Amino acid sequence: MKKHFRVIESCPETRARIGELITPHGTIITPAFMPAASQGTVKTLTPQEVRDIDISIILSNAYHLYLRPGIETIQKLGGLHQYMAWDRPILTDSGGYQVFSLAALRRIDDEGVLFRSHIDGSEHFLTPELIIESQEKLGADIIMPLDECVAYTDDKTVVRRAMERTHLWAERCLKHHKSNQSLYGIIQGGVFSELRRQSVAAITSFGFSGYALGGLSVGETKELTWEIVSETAALLPKSQPRYLMGMGSPEDIVTGVALGIDLFDSALPTRVARNGALFTRTGRKNIRNAAYNTKDKATDAECDCYTCRTFSAAYLHHLFKCEELLAYRLATIHNLRFIVRLLQEIRDNIQEGTFSAFQKGFLAHYQPTDQEIRLNQKQKWLKRMLNDQK
Amino acid sequence: MKKHFRVIESCPETRARIGELITPHGTIITPAFMPAASQGTVKTLTPQEVRDIDISIILSNAYHLYLRPGIETIQKLGGLHQYMAWDRPILTDSGGYQVFSLAALRRIDDEGVLFRSHIDGSEHFLTPELIIESQEKLGADIIMPLDECVAYTDDKTVVRRAMERTHLWAERCLKHHKSNQSLYGIIQGGVFSELRRQSVAAITSFGFSGYALGGLSVGETKELTWEIVSETAALLPKSQPRYLMGMGSPEDIVTGVALGIDLFDSALPTRVARNGALFTRTGRKNIRNAAYNTKDKATDAECDCYTCRTFSAAYLHHLFKCEELLAYRLATIHNLRFIVRLLQEIRDNIQEGTFSAFQKGFLAHYQPTDQEIRLNQKQKWLKRMLNDQK
Repeated sequence: MKKHFRVIESCPETRARIGELITPHGTIITPAFMPAASQGTVKTLTPQEVRDIDISIILSNAYHLYLRPGIETIQKLGGLHQYMAWDRPILTDSGGYQVFSLAALRRIDDEGVLFRSHIDGSEHFLTPELIIESQEKLGADIIMPLDECVAYTDDKTVVRRAMERTHLWAERCLKHHKSNQSLYGIIQGGVFSELRRQSVAAITSFGFSGYALGGLSVGETKELTWEIVSETAALLPKSQPRYLMGMGSPEDIVTGVALGIDLFDSALPTRVARNGALFTRTGRKNIRNAAYNTKDKATDAECDCYTCRTFSAAYLHHLFKCEELLAYRLATIHNLRFIVRLLQEIRDNIQEGTFSAFQKGFLAHYQPTDQEIRLNQKQKWLKRMLNDQK
Repeated sequence: MKKHFRVIESCPETRARIGELITPHGTIITPAFMPAASQGTVKTLTPQEVRDIDISIILSNAYHLYLRPGIETIQKLGGLHQYMAWDRPILTDSGGYQVFSLAALRRIDDEGVLFRSHIDGSEHFLTPELIIESQEKLGADIIMPLDECVAYTDDKTVVRRAMERTHLWAERCLKHHKSNQSLYGIIQGGVFSELRRQSVAAITSFGFSGYALGGLSVGETKELTWEIVSETAALLPKSQPRYLMGMGSPEDIVTGVALGIDLFDSALPTRVARNGALFTRTGRKNIRNAAYNTKDKATDAECDCYTCRTFSAAYLHHLFKCEELLAYRLATIHNLRFIVRLLQEIRDNIQEGTFSAFQKGFLAHYQPTDQEIRLNQKQKWLKRMLNDQK
């Protein structure tokens, strides 16, 4: 089997690096961002648009697809790539996070997890083996084991128990894994350095194609998130890809890259787009603000996306005010293109040896959304998602 | 000024004809269909997609744009074409129909109509002159006068009064009209042959660039609609375009063309698409039906649209079940392309002298939605629209 990953270039001042991730559906240059295509579609976009934005890999979700339309349905229709007409790489998450955040949990033990569907209340029992088989049938390029995710807590016993079960399941996933898909291990351990160290030791000892940092951005402060990312990433093997699960705002990406992260995924860029928040180099702008009603220029004058090339901020504002469906798409195109261009700039700067200065400059100009607002939004969003999907 | 319209070819057996409609933004070959872009967007689509489908002219609405974002806003931003990034012809409806169907009417007299906005309850007074000025500022290629629309009724006095006011307003619109936009006259008169004859006599005596049949499909049976269309179209000058307002289902288009109609508009193809109803040559198919869950082929195997070329019916079914926004777009693309291809086939058959046989064949295979269902849907839709937009 071909080597899955190699580092091409490293930053002399930070842990940032450029890598090549080789998959059956093509090579991805890292650092890279994977937009969420949880239900087999990057919300509002056609696969052609996702290509035009120059997204190199997307993230889908075995939990969502297992419940609807069903794994066997997709398998019969030729696998996930053919089903959704996307011919570039796909990573499928196992859906561990969704089982613990969306579903009504019935029982969890070492064997697996019994839950009720958030869609129709039907009961399902997921095991590490079933999750691997499901992802093999879907046919993604990179797949993830079942893990146990807990929300942020200072109860070390709870976190340790979930971590130990994650290790047990990781080993079973690896044993059951027969395809040529790349299987990554997931590091758990909450905000406890000691547990994170234990988790890295256990998971890397099994030997996976790459390593993911799970259980972060689940309610803890940003400071704590980055402390744990920094410590944990430093312990992971340099020669393998590192994936920070569920984080992908512009500021997260710049900071994560500096700490040695190669892969990011997040529903944030597409979700906030649908709320009218557009990324610019100075921060998110809310296109619903009355000030945009007559703004003749593009929302982000520096951007080369279809939206910014074609429409004024005034028109986009109008579409949002009228709740026209086109609004959500145009904003999504912009935010994803912003992320793709940001990553290109990050890689160029790593290449040129100027990444550290770039990072400082970016973070000095980019006004991130206030932490309190951010946590509130996350709570509201989780609540709404639960209600929406009941 | 260049001649606005000329007939190129006529069917020897029916009143069908091919024509050329010359406008500042290009020539339209008729019969043609105008999709609704009431708020300055063909719902769910970018202008590029509308072009790719090969739509030659769209219909926007002065009433909607007057209320939001405001006529002056669009004028300042370079007019409607530039605002919405559409460089082919546009027809703007005056919004008479919307004032009478959407707004809360306060008072109507010969001077104009006082109403409350369906969006924010603000009070507005529309006059024929204001409507013409608004449409001149928007800059559409073809514009419409203010008319008084009444729902289907057998009270001839009510219909006559509205018709007489429509005539009065038509004359004022024509007097106030100074741009090089083509202004069409609107024929009213409900389902009364005598009134329709009077309306044709009055409106054609003023001399417009084209003639529209208004006040149809407002609650009367289809049989009655076609009786009135047939009688009225026959009285209109052959050398000018005839526009059937607010009708544009596949069966309506085929029937209307046979009666000498050149232009159609309707929100139906795009609206039913968003409900999951896809046109095929045997009638509308509901993609939400469970039978499509595993259908590997395109919804309409004969279609060349992006949706049918790219995705299985199963995938489209999945998107609708998940309420993914992409679903509404993919269905809209298909339905509009279906209409465009139908019109191309109609024109080819007129050209070849085989239109009459084509019409019979089409109507024999196409199963229209049952009249009772249709009227119920229309009621439900109007009610929902009112609620949505309150």
